[in-house]
Amino acid sequence: MNKAVLSVLGRRIRQKRTQNGWTQEDLAENAGIDRSYIGGVERGERNLTFTVLCQICEALECDLAELTSGIPGNLE
Amino acid sequence: MNKAVLSVLGRRIRQKRTQNGWTQEDLAENAGIDRSYIGGVERGERNLTFTVLCQICEALECDLAELTSGIPGNLE
Repeated sequence: MNKAVLSVLGRRIRQKRTQNGWTQEDLAENAGIDRSYIGGVERGERNLTFTVLCQICEALECDLAELTSGIPGNLE
Repeated sequence: MNKAVLSVLGRRIRQKRTQNGWTQEDLAENAGIDRSYIGGVERGERNLTFTVLCQICEALECDLAELTSGIPGNLE
């Protein structure tokens, strides 16, 4: 389960970021997180904490529910 | 922000658990997580990782979006 939920979440964060027309640097700066860490999250390689996830959502100005519908039970 | 989002999340997990009529032991066993850790999560004292949160949701048979609507931007 772990790898699957992290890669779905990462894909959605990337989608949301690119919808904003942002680079990973833009998101990293807005969220106050290291750029390479953002790259790892988007590739599903980082098991981020809840507060880091909230920082990312706050930077993307989106609700956490928007990024997590269907997780963990109905992954597309 | 951190303390606020963790306590909202913890409260909602507790609410969902008690709706199921479960004790913390029941949830801990079903999620494969230590009972005292569940207590800390419910009190908003644990900054849990995304995969641990998914384990809790899977045990509660709920969607992560259900526990996270309004987080981080519209906390009640």
